[in-house]
Amino acid sequence: MPNLTLDDPTANRLADLFSALSDPTRVRIVAALMEGEVSVGDLVQQIGPTKSAISHQLRGLKDKRLIRARKQGRQVFIAIADEHVTELFQKGLEHARHS
Amino acid sequence: MPNLTLDDPTANRLADLFSALSDPTRVRIVAALMEGEVSVGDLVQQIGPTKSAISHQLRGLKDKRLIRARKQGRQVFIAIADEHVTELFQKGLEHARHS
Repeated sequence: MPNLTLDDPTANRLADLFSALSDPTRVRIVAALMEGEVSVGDLVQQIGPTKSAISHQLRGLKDKRLIRARKQGRQVFIAIADEHVTELFQKGLEHARHS
Repeated sequence: MPNLTLDDPTANRLADLFSALSDPTRVRIVAALMEGEVSVGDLVQQIGPTKSAISHQLRGLKDKRLIRARKQGRQVFIAIADEHVTELFQKGLEHARHS
């Protein structure tokens, strides 16, 4: 890859993306979604502490397009938005586990 | 990957890692290092605005072990710490460019 100079919008979007993941609860949510979609109820149960805290973090992750939501009856299921996010998160996890 | 539950230290380290990259200047520094090590002087020239601003961000990136520094004579060369960081950054860039 040649010496990489980022334009302003790209540098800002990238900083925003990493910023969206710079919170332990959000990290836990994304981790819980690594194997596939999970209902909001199950996320609350697994991660806690409250539905309102999880919903708040889900909104933030959705605004940054890291996750997507799907309604089914009265349940909402959350999934990772795309493969890039999954791979990004896995690389981060490898670094965190080896540092 | 099974449903992934992170312990506290791992979730915190991972949030810290993403936090270290949640700034446009830091993102630009890491981008500039994608092809290999670069002297601090060249980073200042490429990214600016001042040596002191770049040095400040380099310290932050080094504290989080995202980069390493090597002295040679009067120059300091900066490089990405390991392959995980390179791959993490590339995945982030792909996401930022497609969103």
